[in-house]
Amino acid sequence: MPLDDPTPYDGHPEGHASLRGSLTRTRQTSIQIAEPLSEEDQIVQAMEDASPTKWHLAHTTWFFEELVLKPHDPAYKIFDERFGYCFNSYYETVGDRHPRPKRSLLTRPRHDEVIAYREHVDEALENFFDRGGNGPSPQALDLITLGVNHEQQHQELMLTDCLAIFAGNPLRPAYREEGTAIEGGKIPDLRWVDFGGGILPVGHQGEGFAFDNESPRHDQLIRPFRLANRLVTNAEWLEFMADGGYATPTLWLADGWAIVKREGWDAPHYWEQRDGVWHQMTLRGLKPVDPARPVCHVSFFEADAFARWAGKRLPSEFEWEVASADQPLEGNILSHDALRPEAARLGEPGLQQMIGDVWEWTASAYLSYPGFKPATGAVGEYNGKFMCNQFVLKGASCVTPDGHIRRSYRNFFYPHQRWQFTGLRLADDGAAS
Amino acid sequence: MPLDDPTPYDGHPEGHASLRGSLTRTRQTSIQIAEPLSEEDQIVQAMEDASPTKWHLAHTTWFFEELVLKPHDPAYKIFDERFGYCFNSYYETVGDRHPRPKRSLLTRPRHDEVIAYREHVDEALENFFDRGGNGPSPQALDLITLGVNHEQQHQELMLTDCLAIFAGNPLRPAYREEGTAIEGGKIPDLRWVDFGGGILPVGHQGEGFAFDNESPRHDQLIRPFRLANRLVTNAEWLEFMADGGYATPTLWLADGWAIVKREGWDAPHYWEQRDGVWHQMTLRGLKPVDPARPVCHVSFFEADAFARWAGKRLPSEFEWEVASADQPLEGNILSHDALRPEAARLGEPGLQQMIGDVWEWTASAYLSYPGFKPATGAVGEYNGKFMCNQFVLKGASCVTPDGHIRRSYRNFFYPHQRWQFTGLRLADDGAAS
Amino acid sequence: MPLDDPTPYDGHPEGHASLRGSLTRTRQTSIQIAEPLSEEDQIVQAMEDASPTKWHLAHTTWFFEELVLKPHDPAYKIFDERFGYCFNSYYETVGDRHPRPKRSLLTRPRHDEVIAYREHVDEALENFFDRGGNGPSPQALDLITLGVNHEQQHQELMLTDCLAIFAGNPLRPAYREEGTAIEGGKIPDLRWVDFGGGILPVGHQGEGFAFDNESPRHDQLIRPFRLANRLVTNAEWLEFMADGGYATPTLWLADGWAIVKREGWDAPHYWEQRDGVWHQMTLRGLKPVDPARPVCHVSFFEADAFARWAGKRLPSEFEWEVASADQPLEGNILSHDALRPEAARLGEPGLQQMIGDVWEWTASAYLSYPGFKPATGAVGEYNGKFMCNQFVLKGASCVTPDGHIRRSYRNFFYPHQRWQFTGLRLADDGAAS
Amino acid sequence: MPLDDPTPYDGHPEGHASLRGSLTRTRQTSIQIAEPLSEEDQIVQAMEDASPTKWHLAHTTWFFEELVLKPHDPAYKIFDERFGYCFNSYYETVGDRHPRPKRSLLTRPRHDEVIAYREHVDEALENFFDRGGNGPSPQALDLITLGVNHEQQHQELMLTDCLAIFAGNPLRPAYREEGTAIEGGKIPDLRWVDFGGGILPVGHQGEGFAFDNESPRHDQLIRPFRLANRLVTNAEWLEFMADGGYATPTLWLADGWAIVKREGWDAPHYWEQRDGVWHQMTLRGLKPVDPARPVCHVSFFEADAFARWAGKRLPSEFEWEVASADQPLEGNILSHDALRPEAARLGEPGLQQMIGDVWEWTASAYLSYPGFKPATGAVGEYNGKFMCNQFVLKGASCVTPDGHIRRSYRNFFYPHQRWQFTGLRLADDGAAS
Repeated sequence: MPLDDPTPYDGHPEGHASLRGSLTRTRQTSIQIAEPLSEEDQIVQAMEDASPTKWHLAHTTWFFEELVLKPHDPAYKIFDERFGYCFNSYYETVGDRHPRPKRSLLTRPRHDEVIAYREHVDEALENFFDRGGNGPSPQALDLITLGVNHEQQHQELMLTDCLAIFAGNPLRPAYREEGTAIEGGKIPDLRWVDFGGGILPVGHQGEGFAFDNESPRHDQLIRPFRLANRLVTNAEWLEFMADGGYATPTLWLADGWAIVKREGWDAPHYWEQRDGVWHQMTLRGLKPVDPARPVCHVSFFEADAFARWAGKRLPSEFEWEVASADQPLEGNILSHDALRPEAARLGEPGLQQMIGDVWEWTASAYLSYPGFKPATGAVGEYNGKFMCNQFVLKGASCVTPDGHIRRSYRNFFYPHQRWQFTGLRLADDGAAS
Repeated sequence: MPLDDPTPYDGHPEGHASLRGSLTRTRQTSIQIAEPLSEEDQIVQAMEDASPTKWHLAHTTWFFEELVLKPHDPAYKIFDERFGYCFNSYYETVGDRHPRPKRSLLTRPRHDEVIAYREHVDEALENFFDRGGNGPSPQALDLITLGVNHEQQHQELMLTDCLAIFAGNPLRPAYREEGTAIEGGKIPDLRWVDFGGGILPVGHQGEGFAFDNESPRHDQLIRPFRLANRLVTNAEWLEFMADGGYATPTLWLADGWAIVKREGWDAPHYWEQRDGVWHQMTLRGLKPVDPARPVCHVSFFEADAFARWAGKRLPSEFEWEVASADQPLEGNILSHDALRPEAARLGEPGLQQMIGDVWEWTASAYLSYPGFKPATGAVGEYNGKFMCNQFVLKGASCVTPDGHIRRSYRNFFYPHQRWQFTGLRLADDGAAS
Repeated sequence: MPLDDPTPYDGHPEGHASLRGSLTRTRQTSIQIAEPLSEEDQIVQAMEDASPTKWHLAHTTWFFEELVLKPHDPAYKIFDERFGYCFNSYYETVGDRHPRPKRSLLTRPRHDEVIAYREHVDEALENFFDRGGNGPSPQALDLITLGVNHEQQHQELMLTDCLAIFAGNPLRPAYREEGTAIEGGKIPDLRWVDFGGGILPVGHQGEGFAFDNESPRHDQLIRPFRLANRLVTNAEWLEFMADGGYATPTLWLADGWAIVKREGWDAPHYWEQRDGVWHQMTLRGLKPVDPARPVCHVSFFEADAFARWAGKRLPSEFEWEVASADQPLEGNILSHDALRPEAARLGEPGLQQMIGDVWEWTASAYLSYPGFKPATGAVGEYNGKFMCNQFVLKGASCVTPDGHIRRSYRNFFYPHQRWQFTGLRLADDGAAS
Repeated sequence: MPLDDPTPYDGHPEGHASLRGSLTRTRQTSIQIAEPLSEEDQIVQAMEDASPTKWHLAHTTWFFEELVLKPHDPAYKIFDERFGYCFNSYYETVGDRHPRPKRSLLTRPRHDEVIAYREHVDEALENFFDRGGNGPSPQALDLITLGVNHEQQHQELMLTDCLAIFAGNPLRPAYREEGTAIEGGKIPDLRWVDFGGGILPVGHQGEGFAFDNESPRHDQLIRPFRLANRLVTNAEWLEFMADGGYATPTLWLADGWAIVKREGWDAPHYWEQRDGVWHQMTLRGLKPVDPARPVCHVSFFEADAFARWAGKRLPSEFEWEVASADQPLEGNILSHDALRPEAARLGEPGLQQMIGDVWEWTASAYLSYPGFKPATGAVGEYNGKFMCNQFVLKGASCVTPDGHIRRSYRNFFYPHQRWQFTGLRLADDGAAS
């Protein structure tokens, strides 16, 4: 979590103020996300990969208590000594923890106790800031910043994990009923946008926060390439299915094909047929598959097979990053409140849907950048230890919180995982100049 | 569920009245059992064998709706067509159902909807009865009786499943704080009570309800035998452990020894050491192991190994039934409110602890009685299809509801299962006369 | 392995002579069974339940070395100290052993070394006998007798395990090509033979060897019953299949139905369709299913479901034993050399096929007889520790060796197992007299 | 398997002659490798990842039959139609195949039939060549070349799979007894060799055969780096162990640490303690761990953890390739006949052990090179479909056959796999120039 420039906070009241505002908003957003969910909804766990909402609410709080308040605020009074064991996720440095697959057993501490825990820590952070010069050191401010970003990540997980629960419920309940969605628009043609390549810098630069895995900024040798102007749509995915995509082994990586057969995959995750019509489970409930919207909840294996079927390939993480340079950092993200990917717009020149809608699988294995050094201590476990067997995703999804968007952002998941809001954009080699 | 004598209800208002009273009390008891539990506690599932409290509340209601009201009350209006799929347990005859290991995903219907479902069905049953001569047929009355007994079984499971959740919670919460338990009394000596054997009738007789697996009443050839006057105690179990009971393969059945090694069993379920002292998790919270109380939460494999270590054996289900003939049907059961097994009393002549405290493992495989014929239709799936690989337990436990006690009662579990309130009483061959 | 009467050997040369002859024949038979198999065939293991032929050859030899020669013959010189670890099966008392699922890794000691091991032990046993009065004690003679019977059991396993290998081989090779089998005979009608019941003695009696699990002989209360005159045929099984037997959950025990679904069972083990015709793999190679022959390689679960479908039941082990009292101890066993079950004969009065063809599943759980006490020491592990979760089979199969047939014989397997030569005979309750 | 230049064979007798010589030698070498093994040794399978020797002998033959002779030689007469099913490995394009985990069930075709199959195909290939101008087309010659290289790969697997069998055998037999190995030499100090970086070409160039995954040759941007002059030794590994390497989670990737705990790893694969001394199983039998030799049979996870412990890192595949540019393509490979890694030599300047001893784990995920296009048809399945979740290894091992060495060679295995001859060399970032 090395911040590029931790100094702004040191003696810069506006730095403090900005971080305090961000902290307050982030903490409130978590509560708002949980709001449509009953206490029951918030304690169960759809699968080992997912966590209960209440656990997310508590764990993000524990992060501030364990990494900020306990080591940096001598005045801090621990809320409950037993919560460390309950709500540590994977920090070996910090100590033992409750086993991940059994998080739903944590019906105690009760939901109201977790809310009280949040309030206790929020108040302690407020008091910490209020102490001014005797308040947070630059290092503590860095950790608070990390805590804010950490909580934003968990906000996205709260929604993906909630969808997993509701998709497994025979009533297929909606997280929130539909607002004003318009279905069935025309789909803009797929067009190619060319990029020239060269020796180009990638990774986090300059000011503001970034995770450690986005550094060091460094040069990459990039060949000329082309990116599709928009995401792959459900209409295109239905063509892939109709053409036997899920039944043609030569389209698949061997590990992917093994899963297709073992799990009986024949459509994206959360798709099901009702009366002969493909539907898909969404946070808005069960909906007919909308041809114009981007395909979502596909694994890397499926994205890769689709690209091969289409005669194209997935972009590298660096191609995506370079191509995004002139793109605005906005799109269908959490504050847009669609809670689903939305169709590309007609008549839009150049790339669109780069930010929001779905995380885009890349062909890049998730590995460290040259010269990467994780921080010492517990935060060193944040990203580095997962650099194996996963693939990088770029962009953001329809449930990524605001303020959590960067061109250098490196999301990562295992190639078989499907419960995130994941889709793809096609790439191709550029013309030799 | 062939009742021995279904006629009492037919034109006998007192039969109706008694059954209505039993129905009302049973339905209320389920609600009372759930009362100390939060909505969170009531939705999670500690393991595949266990079910959420809310599911128990709904399933017992579904049983009345599906087997009584829908087929027998033309006036009945179904509460929600979708609940059948959600709350069917294992009745293949009735239709598909939500998979057992995923019952905790049923956060919807919400808890308050399940309560409303209960009230709807309760009211419908009341109305059904009120119709008098146009009310329940003898067959429907039989099924209501079965529904009452079915719900009583689930009441015991609610408590055992709740203990499983709390035992897996790092805070080790109590279902209810201790009342007036007295620890550390003296343990009465183990004495033997002799029985003469002969050709003796076993199985359900006469009046009142019994499950189908208790019939037909038939003769068994029983050899002279002896039963211990009381249950095996924790003190005796600690001796077994100190003598290497869990490390001596020749004491164990081969399948049991395989589990001991695979699972690392070295003490009864829910036992753990704290500062060098054995504790056990109970519905009253984590307590030091009380030497005087009966050992509880041991599997058949452990009970069998203990008996072999002691140079004795487990009784057969028929020996137990014959020996219980003169015993009162009372003891430490649910209404006693101990919620834990209690120590045997000093100075008591003859057998004690036959009813209540713990279900007693027998050496009898759970098989059908000669001439057993399951009922046709869904209720035929009640007991018969489980007659394989399980062992019979006799008596009752500290969480068995009142009115659910019979000498002919045949409880059954797999030999490796430990989460029920299960213990043992030693037996031996009698002297040749 | 308590022999009823160990004294015959003590000072009775003819007892010695008879046992020596039996020993010699048994040891030779094992070699003859292995004869059609290549060294390759003899080392592999089709599944965890099965063992390599070479391992059977070595283990039966180890049994004589470990339990007879080492403790009882001071002159015995151990062949190779390392073989004990390699060839112990499950005797915890004797020591550690090579893990069962990895027996095929024992390519060393080589096949010729195992043959040399056999010859070394055979010669030592000969020498032991030759010493006359200084030769085997009565106890040693008992153990030699046990060793002979033990090796006969493994002879049957050699053939069942070999069939498992060849059935998994895409070439479906024959263990031995067909001799003179005649297919397609008429099937005698199923008729019922009545038995009166009463208090009747069962279990091993009198002279000669029996396994410990056949004792003590004791009385059983048996109700009037009827047995089918012959085994269930393939023709009848095809009817069961055509009537949806494998797709009707109410016919099945719950544990059986779970396996049917999980494993996709839709026919007996080793059945497969070729060009729309059911074939079955046999020791004679892949053959069209012969309607007249008894069904074979069905599990207890299948046998039980079939009986329920037929409106009948399986016999108890005691019913079978009582019914067999007047039957000759002969039939289609190993020396008959069919290597497959054969069709019942037309025009035969009374019961037939009681001995040979297939082991007959009974409704009896495999449990100890009243008063059963296993021997002390390693041989005490022979049978008793398996008395859980298995069912008794009676009779003998087409690959049971001669001299290994008793009415009191109790074979036992888990209810899901199918690789033995297992079938069934229907039973029913008798008329109340 | 695009050959860079397929034309040499077309009308160039010396091209033919060279390939014929290589083919003949390669086919003989396989037989020689199998020579010390009994038929039993050659049929069993230590684990799912490994295959029986006989299967390797047959599969490499099938490759020539299926991909060369059947499509390209109209005169070819198929040996046995059934062998295709038996000996296809993973070519979905070619058809169904016998399941990999059950290859040891292929005791038929017998060993001598497989040898006859080899001779049949060898003779057919000879005849094909003899036909001269009517013989192999350029495309067929390419495929024969691929078949030779394919068989060389399987030769290495024969030896690694054989070691897996013997390591699981309680007798710990040697594949071949020790020759003239000298133990206990001094270990040369670890020194660093610097490389300057730049935009440098990597991948296969020019003439001769290479696998498709080594192409296209392309530029990589390489930063200044340093490589250790020699491989990591057993002595260094013992230090890592003594320092708690296997008990310190922060040294490990998260997926690696999960395996360490699950499998109880505490030393390299095939290491075991005998009388308090670490030994390791080798093709020469069980040997005390020699401190001077390179550590072998470590997974990527272990190599990565060791590098982190040492404060260094693994090289990228490109760093290794660039560094190897001036290295001779020779070392301790199969023809050297050590069958074990050997110690580095004292007083040797520059890099050593680059070729032979052990395959060196790199930090590079196994992915396609820019512009990679797999061939059409079955050979397109050769490498590309495995480009996921594996890591690249460079160099060669002590059992890599002669003629199978290239600087651009990309070996690949999953990060948890340990049964290959795998070790590591440390790398570090170079000084900024």
